[in-house]
Amino acid sequence: MTLGTDVAPRGDAPLRFGANYTPSKEWMHSWLDLDLDAVRRDFAGLAALGLDHVRIFPLWTVLQPNRTLIREKAVADVRAVVDVAAEFGLDASVDVIQGHLSSFDFIPSWLFTWHDKNMFTHPQALSGQVALVERLGTALADAPNFLGFTLGNEVNQFSAAVHPSPWPVSPAEAAGWLTTLLDAAERAAPGLPHVHSEYDAAWYMDGHGFVPAHATRIGAMTTVHSWIFNGTAQRYGGRSAASDRHAEYMIELSRAFATDPARPVWLQEVGAPSNCLAPEEMPDFLEATVRAAARTENLWGVTWWCSHDVARSLADYPELEYSLGLIDQEGRAKPIGERFAEVIPTLRRRVPAPARTTAIVVEVDEDDVPLSRAALSPGGAVFQAWVDACAAGQDVAFVTSRVAADPAGLAARGIDALIRPDLGTGSGVYSSNNTVVAE
Amino acid sequence: MTLGTDVAPRGDAPLRFGANYTPSKEWMHSWLDLDLDAVRRDFAGLAALGLDHVRIFPLWTVLQPNRTLIREKAVADVRAVVDVAAEFGLDASVDVIQGHLSSFDFIPSWLFTWHDKNMFTHPQALSGQVALVERLGTALADAPNFLGFTLGNEVNQFSAAVHPSPWPVSPAEAAGWLTTLLDAAERAAPGLPHVHSEYDAAWYMDGHGFVPAHATRIGAMTTVHSWIFNGTAQRYGGRSAASDRHAEYMIELSRAFATDPARPVWLQEVGAPSNCLAPEEMPDFLEATVRAAARTENLWGVTWWCSHDVARSLADYPELEYSLGLIDQEGRAKPIGERFAEVIPTLRRRVPAPARTTAIVVEVDEDDVPLSRAALSPGGAVFQAWVDACAAGQDVAFVTSRVAADPAGLAARGIDALIRPDLGTGSGVYSSNNTVVAE
Repeated sequence: MTLGTDVAPRGDAPLRFGANYTPSKEWMHSWLDLDLDAVRRDFAGLAALGLDHVRIFPLWTVLQPNRTLIREKAVADVRAVVDVAAEFGLDASVDVIQGHLSSFDFIPSWLFTWHDKNMFTHPQALSGQVALVERLGTALADAPNFLGFTLGNEVNQFSAAVHPSPWPVSPAEAAGWLTTLLDAAERAAPGLPHVHSEYDAAWYMDGHGFVPAHATRIGAMTTVHSWIFNGTAQRYGGRSAASDRHAEYMIELSRAFATDPARPVWLQEVGAPSNCLAPEEMPDFLEATVRAAARTENLWGVTWWCSHDVARSLADYPELEYSLGLIDQEGRAKPIGERFAEVIPTLRRRVPAPARTTAIVVEVDEDDVPLSRAALSPGGAVFQAWVDACAAGQDVAFVTSRVAADPAGLAARGIDALIRPDLGTGSGVYSSNNTVVAE
Repeated sequence: MTLGTDVAPRGDAPLRFGANYTPSKEWMHSWLDLDLDAVRRDFAGLAALGLDHVRIFPLWTVLQPNRTLIREKAVADVRAVVDVAAEFGLDASVDVIQGHLSSFDFIPSWLFTWHDKNMFTHPQALSGQVALVERLGTALADAPNFLGFTLGNEVNQFSAAVHPSPWPVSPAEAAGWLTTLLDAAERAAPGLPHVHSEYDAAWYMDGHGFVPAHATRIGAMTTVHSWIFNGTAQRYGGRSAASDRHAEYMIELSRAFATDPARPVWLQEVGAPSNCLAPEEMPDFLEATVRAAARTENLWGVTWWCSHDVARSLADYPELEYSLGLIDQEGRAKPIGERFAEVIPTLRRRVPAPARTTAIVVEVDEDDVPLSRAALSPGGAVFQAWVDACAAGQDVAFVTSRVAADPAGLAARGIDALIRPDLGTGSGVYSSNNTVVAE
């Protein structure tokens, strides 16, 4: 079912559906003992659900234990998993700076403690990462099902003060890191839609060095990571419209910052966390989330988090991480996986997105940084305005205040009415810590 | 040349000589891609120098990537290297919590950043380490050339404030960690001389949670790690008597704190760092160091740091780490290795240690913690008193002030004269950072 790697979801290109691949056996640590037959069993289960792609997460520490030692075997292992995906008709997106997964950090020893270097700005840290991107890209470039790189999973968190070993960045420095590595990806594996990903601090946390303009203007697509444990479920309820449509909200919000009106958006991560949803609510949450996202324009596709439950024999994950899978530890599709399989065929073929002629205005500064990212966050004035519009049955868009001041810009976006939230109202309840670590 | 694993160097048990094994190919990262033929080449070179043992360093992150995932393959790899050592007549000492090596930290992701747990005190951190010690011990117990465990390489540094992510410990907590893991080692591999190791902060840094009493009373032997870049070479010169006899100093100093007069001491790490010694000085430094150490009683043996030079193709090591090997990257014995090979046969057979009837007094509190560890450190009053005695041609011992106040204790140690350094004199120049990281 390889659907090709065209970036832009033009015309009748079908919507893409996939899963973030969490190996059922030994989770990401399986890279240390790669068992391709275990991967085959996992991928067979995903293909049986009707998925067309996986996103895979080779660990940085395994690929590059020393700055100048990129392990041949580890590179070959990544290629082997991509090739195994092809056996099952699955395309493969590959994360290259990995980084952070499910509360665990995988920072090579040449970048922390005695060797602490800001991974985003230190020249040696940058050259080391460039070498890894180039090496891995060269190894994957001719794989027909290789979808391109993502520059790590939400590694923007390493720039946040919540981290014990922060590497702060300015927006300019963050942009420098992104473009340096994306340029390397393009050199090594040209023509593919290489992207980057951030957790939602880029949208919701004031002062964060990664900003909406990065998400929406750098890389081939805007990637959206939507997690309702960020305050949305706590404030509005796990099965509230705010939660069901949180991914749609982020997609539409992102569009306000995109300068290319046809820029594709990839809902790259969204999942049903057990600290916000009862098990019996999860299938409905998935269906509501995916159907809401499918109502947005230029959506590339949806990649669910995650493919397989984490084995209970592995310790120390936040509780919610154990049960995010579409497939359980015995290889059986869970009700949420079955629901995904039912929904996918109904959404493959694109239908026209609803017109969004009313826009909520996001106040920004001269660099298009929101004046209050808290206002965008769950409970904030902008977020609440969206929730209110949803409740009124209205499909709204977003525009920045700079676009709102530009009649031609509004016209180009088809906007004929504006909602200006009072930033003095509402209060964001965003939880900046995207990782709930059990003690 | 397997010489057995008797702990106590009684009677005519020969002195042991070995090397800390730094694989010539990919350094410790070679555990990720174990190549036993490469190990064989390395061990053949060491056996040709006349060594009788190696100390090996499997990485913690490779053995135990998740607290409850101890990799079968990694455990088997450690056993395989121990068995390969036997092929060359080499005994093998195995470090089990690894931890820290040559400026690089290898802390599993279940213990840092989001999962930050004090490895010395957190119950889960302890139970995880116990499980690793037991598992690895069970796999090695019946290897006839297995010398026992060391609880990691100088991991006491993780308790020091110099580390960005410190896990402070009190002396009682440090003792708890040591005994918990040594008990596990004894359960899994009974009857072997399991030990622990600290870098010299235990001796020289006031306030450090690991104290001389731990080094000298817990575990089967006292291990000494002697590095003249700790201020000794800077203050006195790289080929000064203070540097040549620094290991001997630490051995004798340790004896002041031992409660078992027959306790063996293992000079487990000593090397010739290029920031203190010119290349042409290194063979003489080795010979002087080893001969001085051999003049102490109950010495188990000397394990040189290290076996093989680090490849220049690997980045980011402190400069001195590249050239510490006895053998170069081409597999040739370096002049320092040749000198070791010449010296070993002359020192295998024990000769009576010189009588040390005069002792320098180390002031201690009621728990035998030195009142001033700075006084013990290079340039400190106690250290200087030793240097002065050496200059006067005198072989001196050390006693604590509590022993010095006990005529029976002095008599039991054969001490009939005391030197009481004025703690108001001298000033320690100890560099608490045992890792000189190049930028």
